[in-house]
Amino acid sequence: MKKLKVIKIGGNIIDNPAELQAFLKDFARIKGLKILVHGGGKLATKLAKKMNIPVKMIDGRRITDQETLDVITMVYAGKISKNIVTKLQSFNCHSVGFSGADGNTIVSEKRPVESVDYGFVGDVVCVDTTTVELLLNGNITPVFCAITHTKKGQLLNTNADTIAAELAIAFVKKYKTELYYCFEKSGVLENINDENSVIDNITKENYKTLVTNGVIADGMLPKLSNCFDAIAKNVSKVCIGKQSMLFDENSKFTTIKA
Amino acid sequence: MKKLKVIKIGGNIIDNPAELQAFLKDFARIKGLKILVHGGGKLATKLAKKMNIPVKMIDGRRITDQETLDVITMVYAGKISKNIVTKLQSFNCHSVGFSGADGNTIVSEKRPVESVDYGFVGDVVCVDTTTVELLLNGNITPVFCAITHTKKGQLLNTNADTIAAELAIAFVKKYKTELYYCFEKSGVLENINDENSVIDNITKENYKTLVTNGVIADGMLPKLSNCFDAIAKNVSKVCIGKQSMLFDENSKFTTIKA
Repeated sequence: MKKLKVIKIGGNIIDNPAELQAFLKDFARIKGLKILVHGGGKLATKLAKKMNIPVKMIDGRRITDQETLDVITMVYAGKISKNIVTKLQSFNCHSVGFSGADGNTIVSEKRPVESVDYGFVGDVVCVDTTTVELLLNGNITPVFCAITHTKKGQLLNTNADTIAAELAIAFVKKYKTELYYCFEKSGVLENINDENSVIDNITKENYKTLVTNGVIADGMLPKLSNCFDAIAKNVSKVCIGKQSMLFDENSKFTTIKA
Repeated sequence: MKKLKVIKIGGNIIDNPAELQAFLKDFARIKGLKILVHGGGKLATKLAKKMNIPVKMIDGRRITDQETLDVITMVYAGKISKNIVTKLQSFNCHSVGFSGADGNTIVSEKRPVESVDYGFVGDVVCVDTTTVELLLNGNITPVFCAITHTKKGQLLNTNADTIAAELAIAFVKKYKTELYYCFEKSGVLENINDENSVIDNITKENYKTLVTNGVIADGMLPKLSNCFDAIAKNVSKVCIGKQSMLFDENSKFTTIKA
């Protein structure tokens, strides 16, 4: 069975042109099948401010009205995606920018309004791997932004971590899939201020303790939830850490295990 | 030999949501292989104004500095492209949004600075059909925006009419290609104020007279130049008119002939 690496990068790389350039150069050299998933970083917020569109956040989540959806679509699927693709091509990595609408790859539904109306935010319903597989077989790397659609003509803002997990899960029957979350820290840290306190392995057992002790909190909770979802659905390897975990054998990172 | 239709739509369709929706519904039903190329309409200018980026035009051509290139990339490759793709998917037309950077499909070079510095504007150098063909063979319709790249990591703003012509030309060895320019008039008009004065055929012979008489002027000159280029390079059919020429047998339009 061939291997497929699904690699998600976040704002710490996206927002820093020099870091992004360096990452893409390394990424281009990764052998075998790979998919890149990128978040949006701070650019969408910056653009919204320039356009005098108020940024509404509840519990760290963006409320996506029509204007905000337009901003996100422009920034994620336009500026960031196409700049990543042209850079990858310059490093001889054949790539195509994707949203979930392209090839009808990721269908989502608008999050139901309960205590909060998140607006045009989508929860993933299903993944159709056909078009992506066609490209992977043609030695082309899909680059995904964090936008999905309803298949009824509506784009939806969707969590990039979830998109990465769902893509990895969707391919487990075809490939031995691995999921890598690159972020600003060397992994899940026992002590958030100590980069040397990386927890090597997180399992269902120590996870509970880590949550109870407050070691895993805030944004790490949904990230870990995506990790466990991927592991439960047979993704063969799930790791969290700095992008160096992909390129440097001596790099420390956290592996999530069943 | 299979047929391939390359269809370019302009601002008159893009800028009108109801018209765009109706066009895409009809477009989705077109049988056989097809590529859609879209211009940007007025949205890029609107966004630039909102962001207080001055719009600089010389002889009707946009001067593209870095900020303007970002706006164009966001609007063309982001908002317009992804909205077209999701709408097409809702009409069961399998599609993927493309720029020239995706799949390294359209490589251009920055227009040399002579009397005018157009900035990040690209003239097409070559077309690599590999990725697009992979999709066409998979029954997927590529949707192109008017952005190309240098293959050295630089995106470039490129004329949508030219992109359509270059794509049609690039496929002549594989398919019997047809090129359709949809715009706001029923074709090239003998009298610009009379929609019934459509010139059925334009050949190299009557073209000279039409230019001399001022019937073909301004924006029609480069459009016709693209048409003759396509015809000279064995595109089998080149037509200009309203989008109805694609769907309605009784529609009038102009055919460009050798």
